[in-house]
Amino acid sequence: MEIRTASDSDWPSIYRFYSVIMCQGTTYAYPEGQTLEEARSWWMEEPPGRTVVAVEEGEIVGSAKMGPNRPGRGSHVGTASFLVDPARHGRGIGRALGEHVIDWSRAEGFRGIQFNAVVETNSSAVRLWKSLGFEVIGTVPETFDHPEHGLVGLHVMHLPL
Amino acid sequence: MEIRTASDSDWPSIYRFYSVIMCQGTTYAYPEGQTLEEARSWWMEEPPGRTVVAVEEGEIVGSAKMGPNRPGRGSHVGTASFLVDPARHGRGIGRALGEHVIDWSRAEGFRGIQFNAVVETNSSAVRLWKSLGFEVIGTVPETFDHPEHGLVGLHVMHLPL
Repeated sequence: MEIRTASDSDWPSIYRFYSVIMCQGTTYAYPEGQTLEEARSWWMEEPPGRTVVAVEEGEIVGSAKMGPNRPGRGSHVGTASFLVDPARHGRGIGRALGEHVIDWSRAEGFRGIQFNAVVETNSSAVRLWKSLGFEVIGTVPETFDHPEHGLVGLHVMHLPL
Repeated sequence: MEIRTASDSDWPSIYRFYSVIMCQGTTYAYPEGQTLEEARSWWMEEPPGRTVVAVEEGEIVGSAKMGPNRPGRGSHVGTASFLVDPARHGRGIGRALGEHVIDWSRAEGFRGIQFNAVVETNSSAVRLWKSLGFEVIGTVPETFDHPEHGLVGLHVMHLPL
């Protein structure tokens, strides 16, 4: 698997699974039903942020975006978001993207990485981030309207670098 | 003191203390050195959000902005931010704005209010929000570069409605 910076022309391939994941509605508090063009700026980051794609046998199978979590006096802490093609789960794509983000964030001089809203019922993601060293700082109760479980909490997670 | 919805023409009066507070740099991770026009969209909310001003003897002495903390499946939880003219601290303006935001959020049907980044050394704000029923869900360490204290934590605070 290769991980490389996304180009504008990659967006339609990312949107193919972005739109499925947002429609499933179990992992992201994002606007619903976004068109290709509406969603573009929600995922394709401009510097100092960055979007990457994971490529397997010439096909885009996952993506991550990363960059400062806040401007100004919070810009020394990074954040990131991840998408894996639902047809390719369980093959280490999320882990590879996570490790890539950690390496990039450290190289860019970030002092830590904060995830602001990890759905507490997304156990594979929570397990993965914990295995990469992230800690749950707290869980804001009933902040995510899950299509199956109703109102569930969102974890704030943090990794010092 | 009157609290009313801000109009476009109020922005220069708000910016007068907005710019001072951002320059002091002790309470907000916002971009630094914003001009009047650069800062406008950072404070003046469009629906479904809303910006209000606190007015005392015809003068704007504070402001708050409020609205959904996240889109989509997180839009049932509100958030808010507050500014009080540094020349008018300790006169209950922040408390009046906080109570106004809670009343508005409840009336709008929000299920809770989340503050994402309360500087842990901002003890008057932390004390005020706790007195209004907010709880510290967790503190993300070393996420705010304080001009006097160096790297300090940011509280995530929450009030169920």
